[in-house]
Amino acid sequence: MTTRWKITIEYDGQSYVGWQRQDNGASIQQSIEEALVKLTGEAPTITAAGRTDAGVHALGQVAHFDLTIARSPKAIRDGLNFHLRPHPIVILDAEVVAADFNARMSAIERQYLYRILARPAPSCLRRQRVWHHPFLLDWQAMDEAAKILEGYHDFSTFRASECQAKSPLRTLDELRVRALGDEIQIFARARSFLHHQIRNIAGSLALVGRGKWTKEDLKSALDACDRTKGGPTAPPEGLYFLKVNYVKDAV
Amino acid sequence: MTTRWKITIEYDGQSYVGWQRQDNGASIQQSIEEALVKLTGEAPTITAAGRTDAGVHALGQVAHFDLTIARSPKAIRDGLNFHLRPHPIVILDAEVVAADFNARMSAIERQYLYRILARPAPSCLRRQRVWHHPFLLDWQAMDEAAKILEGYHDFSTFRASECQAKSPLRTLDELRVRALGDEIQIFARARSFLHHQIRNIAGSLALVGRGKWTKEDLKSALDACDRTKGGPTAPPEGLYFLKVNYVKDAV
Repeated sequence: MTTRWKITIEYDGQSYVGWQRQDNGASIQQSIEEALVKLTGEAPTITAAGRTDAGVHALGQVAHFDLTIARSPKAIRDGLNFHLRPHPIVILDAEVVAADFNARMSAIERQYLYRILARPAPSCLRRQRVWHHPFLLDWQAMDEAAKILEGYHDFSTFRASECQAKSPLRTLDELRVRALGDEIQIFARARSFLHHQIRNIAGSLALVGRGKWTKEDLKSALDACDRTKGGPTAPPEGLYFLKVNYVKDAV
Repeated sequence: MTTRWKITIEYDGQSYVGWQRQDNGASIQQSIEEALVKLTGEAPTITAAGRTDAGVHALGQVAHFDLTIARSPKAIRDGLNFHLRPHPIVILDAEVVAADFNARMSAIERQYLYRILARPAPSCLRRQRVWHHPFLLDWQAMDEAAKILEGYHDFSTFRASECQAKSPLRTLDELRVRALGDEIQIFARARSFLHHQIRNIAGSLALVGRGKWTKEDLKSALDACDRTKGGPTAPPEGLYFLKVNYVKDAV
């Protein structure tokens, strides 16, 4: 008799090869799986809602795993946090869910945030927390152009060459650009994203913000369905996996 | 013939003994003075608007110094930033000001921010950037109580024993508590502050937020004019020196 657990996770991606276990370095997945072994003596595989890349952060990644031993949600959360030290990975919440809950397959919406610090002076308190862009950006022009990308499109222009998704078609439910203090923040919401989709979009929107591209240029790039027509890939340190939503009765 | 320079500075206070030069470790002041020597060959003393304590951050500290050589504002800003690497200290802006401008004496208003992350799970992406408070806090109760401290008062209850100010009387022009995402932020504005005044106030407001103090308890503490009647001193990592305002024609 096993219990299925859902955990919500915050992490600093800068020292990791990404979420997924890989041969070339430490991963978030491996760190949490090792903490689980220490805490429970069991070694379940953990499945996450999204496989974030090297350097990408999370404020609300979600994952699931099964345990045979019984523990309280607080004991799982606090115990994992104890054994995760000093890794910059924190379990925000742990809860028991239905046996058919799947962090990846049950997700109906994913939310990401991309933070840009656009100023001549280097980043300091936000090193490795934002994309430091040395030129000023017009966030309103970026927001206006972002509307072009909302909706159902072939996103081949903003898709990494190594992307494993079967189709480049996606529905981008929301793409907003806002100024928050001295930062420019891009908020994106969709059922699922292509590999590097948000970082490629952020790189292209920055071209609009600098005045190098018009919104018509962004439209032409989208319509070309060709990665070589898109802007550069923005760096991972600005990207945050914010939240995952599930159908209520699935949880 | 010398030129007086005003610089605006961002820094991560966690590795420093504070703004001011001291015998027991690296200071922000010393780091910038050393960068100035490398850049200009001159060794002026730098005077800051506020002497922040060990661990306290700045988003807009202001300082002044004199140089005999002529340089453009951009050359001063970028040159200092080059020589400051890898210190977590960044010059945001440099400008030439009138010879009688004094970063400390000409200041008519100082603004501080105190950030609290109130949740059971440890801080991760904001390690050393916020006060991690493991219990939930009622920010609205804190904001309501904060109003008691606004205005002209004897702040002896919230003053460090080693405070060198002649008088404990200060006018706190604004003290607001707000929720921003998962953080609680305290904003304080005054011509000047006593030593540890904001951290002592933050520690007392947290008692109100936890329900251990009523706002009447806070009032009694203020009226007692006695440090031993105040709450604990909140840690330095939550405090940010945000901004300094000057009379326009003084700049």
